[in-house]
Amino acid sequence: MNIRELGERKLVSTIHRLQAMPAMGYIGIGDDAAFLPASDKGWLATSDMLVEGTHFRWQWMDPEQLGEKAVAVNVSDIAAMGGVPKVCLTSLAVHGDVQVDRVESIYRGIARALDRYGAVLVGGDTVGSEGGLVLDVTMLGEPAPAGPVLRRGARPGDRLIVTGRLGAAYGGLVLLERGVRWPGTTAAERSLLTAQLAPTARLEAGSVLASLVHSMTDVSDGLVAELRELARFGGIGMRITEALLPIDEATKELAEREGADPHRWAYYGGEDYELLAAVPPSHIDEARETLERVGIAFAEVGVVTDQPGVFAVSDQGERRLDEEGEFNHFSVQKMLC
Amino acid sequence: MNIRELGERKLVSTIHRLQAMPAMGYIGIGDDAAFLPASDKGWLATSDMLVEGTHFRWQWMDPEQLGEKAVAVNVSDIAAMGGVPKVCLTSLAVHGDVQVDRVESIYRGIARALDRYGAVLVGGDTVGSEGGLVLDVTMLGEPAPAGPVLRRGARPGDRLIVTGRLGAAYGGLVLLERGVRWPGTTAAERSLLTAQLAPTARLEAGSVLASLVHSMTDVSDGLVAELRELARFGGIGMRITEALLPIDEATKELAEREGADPHRWAYYGGEDYELLAAVPPSHIDEARETLERVGIAFAEVGVVTDQPGVFAVSDQGERRLDEEGEFNHFSVQKMLC
Repeated sequence: MNIRELGERKLVSTIHRLQAMPAMGYIGIGDDAAFLPASDKGWLATSDMLVEGTHFRWQWMDPEQLGEKAVAVNVSDIAAMGGVPKVCLTSLAVHGDVQVDRVESIYRGIARALDRYGAVLVGGDTVGSEGGLVLDVTMLGEPAPAGPVLRRGARPGDRLIVTGRLGAAYGGLVLLERGVRWPGTTAAERSLLTAQLAPTARLEAGSVLASLVHSMTDVSDGLVAELRELARFGGIGMRITEALLPIDEATKELAEREGADPHRWAYYGGEDYELLAAVPPSHIDEARETLERVGIAFAEVGVVTDQPGVFAVSDQGERRLDEEGEFNHFSVQKMLC
Repeated sequence: MNIRELGERKLVSTIHRLQAMPAMGYIGIGDDAAFLPASDKGWLATSDMLVEGTHFRWQWMDPEQLGEKAVAVNVSDIAAMGGVPKVCLTSLAVHGDVQVDRVESIYRGIARALDRYGAVLVGGDTVGSEGGLVLDVTMLGEPAPAGPVLRRGARPGDRLIVTGRLGAAYGGLVLLERGVRWPGTTAAERSLLTAQLAPTARLEAGSVLASLVHSMTDVSDGLVAELRELARFGGIGMRITEALLPIDEATKELAEREGADPHRWAYYGGEDYELLAAVPPSHIDEARETLERVGIAFAEVGVVTDQPGVFAVSDQGERRLDEEGEFNHFSVQKMLC
């Protein structure tokens, strides 16, 4: 069997199985970031790798955007734990023929994003490669004062909330596939391309939600995959009210032109880098007010139930979502078709 | 100008220039590992990336060796700061056509090496790639009780010591280029191939030396490049007595057969992953006794001087080494010819 047939999630399980169990207190593989306890508040640690041809193409993205996005997707993982990013290491594999100013622009983008999110670069590696460019970022951060917010912890009755909008990053990918280039020619195009090429990590939202939620994650792999992660623990399930999904006009219009269902883009498209959290009913009003105060839109999209699985309720009744498909980095080309 | 022409060291300077200065107390880009101070002892952090075609070829190395080496080279950086590795994140870019058992073997090697050095895997990333395999490891560790041992700190009069042997890893590379495959057919071949394919990080040596030395680094890029790093600070220089270089018989014999000077392999070959330290004369006997007690060979190879530059003394007199050449990942193919 090859890696494409196995898929990323099963590969991660395999990797997990081969490793010694982390020592007491460590929270390791399987959450947005690892938690490293210490006598003080400890650290969060996460890595995300962007690969030319899989995650980006030079015809689509300028090098400064690449640097900024590589930082943002890692900050998103720290934000999903309710933490604050502090220091970063970057490893870059690059072909010797690549022009120096392109690499400088990548690091300029990294510097700009680190400045935006309040972190600093402290190390990394630069190596030659015969293949495409690979940029791996490791971000270390401080956990929320009350400790890290995990994927585990949602309880039946909790409300499911999502920041911002879903499906827009996939819309941006569709535009790029159709030959539209940054920044597009309309406000709608620019908005979707921004979601795909220049996402914003929900750092402030993660911090203010940390003390109000039972569990949280970012929506990097599509809503359904992330709901399944939240539902992995403790025999719980997730029920989404499809009409409540935060899909903006730009995304809806593009999906309509493409003859596609924008809900599927929200469910399986990936790369939205919004936060998804399970909030106890007693805290839902405070969560709403707090997010409004910091100017971040959010939607209440469903509830946690005691029925295992991920379900959607729409005009057509209830259907199960988590057996339909899955975002898989190893078959992203298939999704693009 | 392209990246090959610029070279790795100038690229790192460029990256450094583009970033904000790390906050007070952080020791960032430019040492073996970054130091992250905290209210407790703080953390060390380092990343090293191995790229198919640049750092390894599948015809030369089995996947378990790759996993072990990726961990060892990172542990070597932690050891060079006098620290102890604790947790690790791994990012893997792999083509979808690669067989699952090959990837499992890489992670089995990672697990074996982590077990050997006392660290655990807590996270990372797995992504598809259209190119060759890329494995990036980030290792976090605890600094030595008295704080991290830096490259900066050597003083004129200090003795320069090196653990183990030099040039053997380059000898192993030469054997692989000549078609010899692991484990070779003689003890000498196996010894050189081990240095190249299965290096051991000098973790125990780093710990026991930490309180005895003024400065320390590992010899990953060849002795001359590392001496130049130690000499970068404070107008000091390094003088090596060529006859004292720890070059073993296997390396000397192979170099003779190749019509090459084994000293050059020690100076510029790279990948030896030994420790190089500047020891005050008052501590040199204790360093010798301590290393002997833990069974690690070491050689006193020269002295720190107040004459900037890296020099070698041999029968032919004194000559300057640090303007002769440099280990450069971007032109490693050239070195192999």
